[in-house]
Amino acid sequence: MKVNDKLNMTMLCDFYELTMAQGYFAKGYKDRITYFDLFFRRCPDGGGFCIAAGLEQVVQYIQELHFSEEDIAYLRGREMFSEEFLEYLRNFKFTGDIWAMPEGTVVFPQEPIITVRAPAIEAQLIETYLLLCINHQSLIATKANRVVRAAQGRTVLEFGSRRAQGPDAAILGARAAYIGGVNGTACTISDQLFGVKASGTMAHAWVQMFDTEYEAFKAYCEMYPNNATLLVDTYNTLKSGVPNAIRAFNDVLKPMGITKCGIRLDSGDMAYLSQKAREMLDEAGWTDCKISVSNSLDEHLIQAVLRQGAKIDMFGVGERLITAKSEPVFGGVYKLVAVEEADGSVTPKIKISENVGKITTPHYKKLYRFIGNDTGKAIADYMCIHDEVVDDSQDIEIFDPENTWKRKVVYNYTAKEVQVPIFKNGELVYELPTLEEIRDYAMAQVDTLWDEVKRFDNPQTYYVDLSQKLWDIKYGLLKNKSV
Amino acid sequence: MKVNDKLNMTMLCDFYELTMAQGYFAKGYKDRITYFDLFFRRCPDGGGFCIAAGLEQVVQYIQELHFSEEDIAYLRGREMFSEEFLEYLRNFKFTGDIWAMPEGTVVFPQEPIITVRAPAIEAQLIETYLLLCINHQSLIATKANRVVRAAQGRTVLEFGSRRAQGPDAAILGARAAYIGGVNGTACTISDQLFGVKASGTMAHAWVQMFDTEYEAFKAYCEMYPNNATLLVDTYNTLKSGVPNAIRAFNDVLKPMGITKCGIRLDSGDMAYLSQKAREMLDEAGWTDCKISVSNSLDEHLIQAVLRQGAKIDMFGVGERLITAKSEPVFGGVYKLVAVEEADGSVTPKIKISENVGKITTPHYKKLYRFIGNDTGKAIADYMCIHDEVVDDSQDIEIFDPENTWKRKVVYNYTAKEVQVPIFKNGELVYELPTLEEIRDYAMAQVDTLWDEVKRFDNPQTYYVDLSQKLWDIKYGLLKNKSV
Repeated sequence: MKVNDKLNMTMLCDFYELTMAQGYFAKGYKDRITYFDLFFRRCPDGGGFCIAAGLEQVVQYIQELHFSEEDIAYLRGREMFSEEFLEYLRNFKFTGDIWAMPEGTVVFPQEPIITVRAPAIEAQLIETYLLLCINHQSLIATKANRVVRAAQGRTVLEFGSRRAQGPDAAILGARAAYIGGVNGTACTISDQLFGVKASGTMAHAWVQMFDTEYEAFKAYCEMYPNNATLLVDTYNTLKSGVPNAIRAFNDVLKPMGITKCGIRLDSGDMAYLSQKAREMLDEAGWTDCKISVSNSLDEHLIQAVLRQGAKIDMFGVGERLITAKSEPVFGGVYKLVAVEEADGSVTPKIKISENVGKITTPHYKKLYRFIGNDTGKAIADYMCIHDEVVDDSQDIEIFDPENTWKRKVVYNYTAKEVQVPIFKNGELVYELPTLEEIRDYAMAQVDTLWDEVKRFDNPQTYYVDLSQKLWDIKYGLLKNKSV
Repeated sequence: MKVNDKLNMTMLCDFYELTMAQGYFAKGYKDRITYFDLFFRRCPDGGGFCIAAGLEQVVQYIQELHFSEEDIAYLRGREMFSEEFLEYLRNFKFTGDIWAMPEGTVVFPQEPIITVRAPAIEAQLIETYLLLCINHQSLIATKANRVVRAAQGRTVLEFGSRRAQGPDAAILGARAAYIGGVNGTACTISDQLFGVKASGTMAHAWVQMFDTEYEAFKAYCEMYPNNATLLVDTYNTLKSGVPNAIRAFNDVLKPMGITKCGIRLDSGDMAYLSQKAREMLDEAGWTDCKISVSNSLDEHLIQAVLRQGAKIDMFGVGERLITAKSEPVFGGVYKLVAVEEADGSVTPKIKISENVGKITTPHYKKLYRFIGNDTGKAIADYMCIHDEVVDDSQDIEIFDPENTWKRKVVYNYTAKEVQVPIFKNGELVYELPTLEEIRDYAMAQVDTLWDEVKRFDNPQTYYVDLSQKLWDIKYGLLKNKSV
């Protein structure tokens, strides 16, 4: 069987979700309404914020959720599931509610990217797939945004398919990178599927195939006179590559009146080589020739070579973006935060841990973002109980949930709910935006942050505070349970 | 469109493969026979060897390679491909030869994992997909083998689906981890598809769902008396978790005469908690109760806690395995090494680089491994030209390709070819082994290595030498080209 056949992703679950599901089924918890939050505990790379991504794939998964006859047969073969339970799975579908931050939303640690309200089995079975979608794409979107900000307005292309962790990582990774702000990709299928504009020119093999470097360049300019970016480092960048490129431009493009062209450096010192190449191109009159580079780039190397005066117009960023190499894990978790009683009241639930960082914030919650009316900038986020309402015509005092003496009065602000309804009683109630809309939204979201929060190293910690009511519930539960 | 529909992976190519392909088509290089090697330059994590994996997915891809009408329409829409070329693509299939190391083979830097001999366009178009398959699965198989060796015979399970970089990374990652030696996975679909045995017990949500921890444990023991592994860290591991687990075992399992059971620790200090829990379990008579742990594990932490006397029977390894977190990129590359002339002779090709490490070893090659007849251990690998033959009844002098005065005579050895034929004229000529066979083979392969090569830190560098003829060609080309 092939991985890329139309797989039923329902079975992409951790096995314990099935054993627990049968347990809930047998112990009368099947229809118990539960609330789960999907959130993370810290930003990768020591960053000050993340960009949420992956919701579109979650929506598709939820809509298709079902167990096929093959799945049932496989489970029966494991000899630990009852026929009653298998019959239940045969008719299984998602009937609950889901709220989520739209893709491209700026998000901070502890905040629910997704909240699920559903019967226990349904909420539990979707755990793994929701996590892997959101973890993967949020990771790449967040990393891409760092790289794009480092490039300070220069073009950034995603070049990493060959180093991606499997086909989906290449395809969806290019999608997530685009949400994070890159300008395009080398991955053809991501263009075909999602409209992430794909482009590319030549590999070293093209140059090697011809008897001389000049012949290879000349042939390429003849083929693609309007898109001639020549790879100049197959033999020796400054001694043969750039001179041969100039000769080919002169011989082929000049007679056609074309001034736009490019060279690409894929090895050697980019700060030095790009400056030397720029001089040579300018002296030869090719001032419109763009210089691209593509060798082990990330946000730090891009900043470093630009500081050193590198003359670079375009960055092709590969493995360090598509795997988020410096920190390749987005540590999203999915935790039970409340259960609904028969009378409809909601009982908050907490998970305590020897590791303080692993303690959850209980309850069915609502998340506000306070935006300054004068600046348009985000001031603080405010988590409260689902039925609390913030009246933003009034000042509000917020406090740090750990150091509660740290207090701040917020005034002249607009309180915006960060999550939106996605599914209601199993039905999609959300219109999925286009990828272009998501990317625009993400760029606008990043613009709401102060520069201090956007700093790569040791950024200012953005306030994510709890309402007094929610704080009281959390610390009350902590006191009672930590016996 | 959904990523997990049956996608035509032909379009998972870098766009430059298509622009180059049209160039070869237009410039008369379409039928030029080329040779490409897929190899890597250094082992991740400073290791002494890697384990090749991912070939099965390469084979499936090659067999399905074709452009659909939708693909042609997409390409036409890009307005840069000629109708003649699109017509060529419409009838495109792979007609060449492929040799590869069987999955599970131990492989060293610079060695061709895959060699492709095919018309230029065909060889070029498959570059990205071959690289991403082999890079991804070799990365995870190699990492898994490190983790498994650290555990010194204890059970290791792959637990990382939720942190994988997309669905394929979870599914194929579990497959690769199994090749590398893990005993099973939490990922249900990898069991269903590939037979990587999936298992699992409970999440914190199960414990939180019930009014008390004891009730949760009791219910689980009743459900799965023969497979009762209880997660004991939801509230307080030693004060409530382990005592409640013992109580549930006593109340449910003991009357049934069951002595096999387990507990799982997911937070806190594993060395300390596992020893304390072991004492408590033993004192209560549950000496057969296994202790599992699962919190940010990798080969180094496993070694460290075992050195400190941790009492652990099973390791559940998540994000640090499924993403190979400490070094999440396997840097495989795919380089032109030769072209065939009209008379059938083979012309070697080289790629030079300012970065010496990026210089390729040219030519259509053959790779031998010399195995000591007395020890069964691998002595050295030997790369030569495709038509050279090593007569292992004779001693052979080998030399270091960089420090050529370092010489060694190999005697009493068997010379084994490392690659096998996979495709011949586009037809599959290789019988794909089962996953179980691949894993057994990988374990046997690792056994052929001396401990010095297997050390995690600063291992002995295994010899990968060139024949005199191949060395002469490589350094002759280097001299001529590096003007």
